[in-house]
Amino acid sequence: MSKSIFYHAGCTVCISAEHDVIELIGKDNVEIVHFGDDKSRIDEAVKAGVKSVPALVTPKGNVLHINFGASMADVIG
Amino acid sequence: MSKSIFYHAGCTVCISAEHDVIELIGKDNVEIVHFGDDKSRIDEAVKAGVKSVPALVTPKGNVLHINFGASMADVIG
Repeated sequence: MSKSIFYHAGCTVCISAEHDVIELIGKDNVEIVHFGDDKSRIDEAVKAGVKSVPALVTPKGNVLHINFGASMADVIG
Repeated sequence: MSKSIFYHAGCTVCISAEHDVIELIGKDNVEIVHFGDDKSRIDEAVKAGVKSVPALVTPKGNVLHINFGASMADVIG
C-alpha cells in the first residue's frame, strides 16, 4: 500500500482535519474513508489500530490519531 | 508562513510521529521544534493553540494534535 488512509466519521473535527491533511500531503496521496458512507471499512480500521477518528494510517501502517473527534466505540455503537 | 511546524518534546510518541510526518509531507515542508533544545519556542506554540505534543501547526495556522505524548503543562512544568 502506497497511499495513506484517512478515516473519519463526518464530525466537525474530522472535516477540518480532512482539509488540513489533504492540503499537507496532497489529495492523490490519501484515500478518504467516511464510516457514515461505508461502515464495512470499520473492521479494517480497528485492525489497523485506529482508536479514534479522525485518524491517518500511513503507508507504513503507523496510525496517527489527529485531534479528537470520536472514539471508535462511538462510531461502532 | 509556508512551512508547517512540528512541535515536540522528545518523547517516544513524539519521535515516532516526527518520522511519520517527515515521510508524509517532506523534510523541506516542515520545521521541527524540540522544546528540550529550545524552550524559548514554548510561548509561541501555546499561542498557536498547541495543547499537547506532538503537534503539527499547518501553514494556515491550524493545529493538528497527533497521538498523545505529553500535555503542554508537562512540557512547561
